[in-house]
Amino acid sequence: MISQSVIDKLKEIVGPDNILTEQEDMLTYSYDAAVLDPRMPGAAVMPGNTDEIGGIVSVCHENRIPITVRGAGTNLSGGTIPEGHGIVMLTGRLNKIIEINEADMYAVVQPGVVTADLAAAVEAKGLFYPPDPGSQAVSTIGGNVAENAGGLRGLKYGVTKDYVMGMRFFDARGNYVKTGSRTVKCATGYNITGLMVGSEGTLGVLDEITLKLIPAPQARQSMVAVYDTIEQASETVAAIIAARIVPATLEILDNFTIRAVEDFSKAGLPVDAAALLLIEVDGHPAVVEEEGQKVEALCKKMGAAGINVAQTDAERDKIWAARRSALSALAKLKPTLVLEDATVPRSKIPDMVKALQDIAEKYKIDIGTFGHAGDGNLHPTILTDKRDKAEFHRVELAIEEIFDKALGFGGTLSGEHGTGIAKAPFLEKEAGFSSILFSRQLRAALDPDNILNPGKITGVSADGK
Amino acid sequence: MISQSVIDKLKEIVGPDNILTEQEDMLTYSYDAAVLDPRMPGAAVMPGNTDEIGGIVSVCHENRIPITVRGAGTNLSGGTIPEGHGIVMLTGRLNKIIEINEADMYAVVQPGVVTADLAAAVEAKGLFYPPDPGSQAVSTIGGNVAENAGGLRGLKYGVTKDYVMGMRFFDARGNYVKTGSRTVKCATGYNITGLMVGSEGTLGVLDEITLKLIPAPQARQSMVAVYDTIEQASETVAAIIAARIVPATLEILDNFTIRAVEDFSKAGLPVDAAALLLIEVDGHPAVVEEEGQKVEALCKKMGAAGINVAQTDAERDKIWAARRSALSALAKLKPTLVLEDATVPRSKIPDMVKALQDIAEKYKIDIGTFGHAGDGNLHPTILTDKRDKAEFHRVELAIEEIFDKALGFGGTLSGEHGTGIAKAPFLEKEAGFSSILFSRQLRAALDPDNILNPGKITGVSADGK
Repeated sequence: MISQSVIDKLKEIVGPDNILTEQEDMLTYSYDAAVLDPRMPGAAVMPGNTDEIGGIVSVCHENRIPITVRGAGTNLSGGTIPEGHGIVMLTGRLNKIIEINEADMYAVVQPGVVTADLAAAVEAKGLFYPPDPGSQAVSTIGGNVAENAGGLRGLKYGVTKDYVMGMRFFDARGNYVKTGSRTVKCATGYNITGLMVGSEGTLGVLDEITLKLIPAPQARQSMVAVYDTIEQASETVAAIIAARIVPATLEILDNFTIRAVEDFSKAGLPVDAAALLLIEVDGHPAVVEEEGQKVEALCKKMGAAGINVAQTDAERDKIWAARRSALSALAKLKPTLVLEDATVPRSKIPDMVKALQDIAEKYKIDIGTFGHAGDGNLHPTILTDKRDKAEFHRVELAIEEIFDKALGFGGTLSGEHGTGIAKAPFLEKEAGFSSILFSRQLRAALDPDNILNPGKITGVSADGK
Repeated sequence: MISQSVIDKLKEIVGPDNILTEQEDMLTYSYDAAVLDPRMPGAAVMPGNTDEIGGIVSVCHENRIPITVRGAGTNLSGGTIPEGHGIVMLTGRLNKIIEINEADMYAVVQPGVVTADLAAAVEAKGLFYPPDPGSQAVSTIGGNVAENAGGLRGLKYGVTKDYVMGMRFFDARGNYVKTGSRTVKCATGYNITGLMVGSEGTLGVLDEITLKLIPAPQARQSMVAVYDTIEQASETVAAIIAARIVPATLEILDNFTIRAVEDFSKAGLPVDAAALLLIEVDGHPAVVEEEGQKVEALCKKMGAAGINVAQTDAERDKIWAARRSALSALAKLKPTLVLEDATVPRSKIPDMVKALQDIAEKYKIDIGTFGHAGDGNLHPTILTDKRDKAEFHRVELAIEEIFDKALGFGGTLSGEHGTGIAKAPFLEKEAGFSSILFSRQLRAALDPDNILNPGKITGVSADGK
């Protein structure tokens, strides 16, 4: 429980309208998009500016109260699930795009800016902010930075960390730290900016983020390739990469996902196809034409039963709207959806697809597979009902086997969803204990009272265990 | 002094042929390319494999002996100047390219691999490792990673940190830490990889580095634009960026540098020109043709007196050989050369060029300016004689004013040369004390005995001051 005197102090900082303590409100902030047990925070606080953020951090530092910062709560690894006796800091009022600098191609934003809003504002100036996580319509830049969010364009354009030039944040002691620069090159001091990206709110509370922008691609072409077997589709992915073509987006949908999406979105997808590849090439018009033709030829060569190239913007948008609905579509089918993102080197995609089929069969569970095949970043999606304890136990075993397979193929536990609570127990499998120890030493030094989003990443809980 | 028993232990680890302790050998390792006082190490040790690296770190950990790792010693900020009572670890024997994976486009290397050797090996497979620091012919990947080295292609392709996917290193306690992945996306655990890049050997001793490779550009075109005033040249840079063209390389040479280079290399440069721009566009042939024409037109529009487009590979190579000789050419002119790399947002290049001229005049010193104009990363190069105390004092004042100007334009102290010893005292000007405190806390936790390259970056010396 948070004491009344602390609540009063927080109220003084943000004003009485910007703090919530009622149980029904706390329920809203007790969970995120990961399948984990909810935990009710003690209060939710909504700062409106730098001073208020700093004030809240200071009060929490003085009183050793855990802080979990929450953007849209779309996190898939439990990174925004609070500590029971802590506060949730909401970034909804911190939604200003402070600057879009066209000459030097950067943007400065507050953490609560919605990803799609920034992308649109930047596009209006002929510039491009590429990271586009599935949840971009609601997700926030602060959340994207905290999780090092990826998206559909990771293959060609990289992920959030590739676009964060600098930031300002309050550390656990309430000090205001500036890191990085507005220059395209910066070798001054430690790369604290790089460390902060993906640190899931455990090393500081973000106040301001400087993001790199790039010139917008002049042209783009999208297509859908239809396959009778998922093996042909996954081998096409490997063949495209082997041909040294880097599409902006190269996504796979298996039959399970195709049917769910079609049922949900009526996009006209071929429900009998074993798999689809959704591909976009972009850049200079001449490159787009050439790469488009090469990709089409490769799809055919690898056995695609049909290829549909979008002829209009409307057709293009339909393809990507269908892809973006995959998660919602699958979520409708059963009470519980576990979205994984174990990732493998790209050439191992065919092996991983096969392994996922074997695992679904072995544990008698439904796995829909879609995702960023070009990155090696599949999203095997397990549909289940958490209340069915026998089945959910098999799901847990399947998840562990998915991790083992990915690591066996030289992959990683998470391509873009982060470690959070969900993957913290498995971290040692990938990185070894020395790496966890190193991370814990670093963290303990920067947050000795363990108030910044305890329990995430390194598995250290609020009581230091 | 290092005790004989420690020397004996080190000798046991690496063999008697791989440890040096003679004074004349120590002299070699007492300085680097920065203008700073030399410091003689106690011994130089050359490990040949992972176990030997680990063994050396353990001995140093147990005996609290500082370790400074040294590749080619081309460091320009004093990052490889050792502690007087410490050892220098040489990476010359750690020069294996362990793997070049074409399908998944990555390379795994030991830290002592020479940058140009890796670039050539990768190019032979049709792939591309873009970071090309000026010293690439001798510099090592380990050194590049430690300093987050830049190069001529930073504008389009980024710097070393953009290519480091993962690494393995020994921390200060001798533990073996694995971080990052061989997948293109990785959101597992903290981004320790990002933190390590540019940490100048203060957080760990590198054993193995995984680097991202990309498809090689299919075509390229180089040109030299000649200007009667340096203002026209610097305004052309801003105009090219404003036109949303991103050349692979966009370099500037002022008259002082042109004359020095021509005298040194006989490349046929126009010695009367006030400034030159050296430009390369690369990529798809159609893009190269179009961008080449656009850049040429922009140069003319902004007042170039002449433009020479390289017609053959030999002509192209001549341009870049001339550029790469700039530092050597300038170094011949006077006994002491101070190479700075304060960096500004790109649109501020004309202002920074003007400021450098004013500073040279004000302090009555010679400043040759060249560098990566497209990045905002100029290399003002001060020619002096350190023994002339009056002049060298003016040089020191000029350097501080260069820093102040760069920061005033929203820039940074170092674009690519690192903080080292040279810039540590100025760090607070840019980042503020809270940022230094944060860095020191982090460092003290990871290296409590302060044995890893003491005195660099955060200005903490071996005795904790």
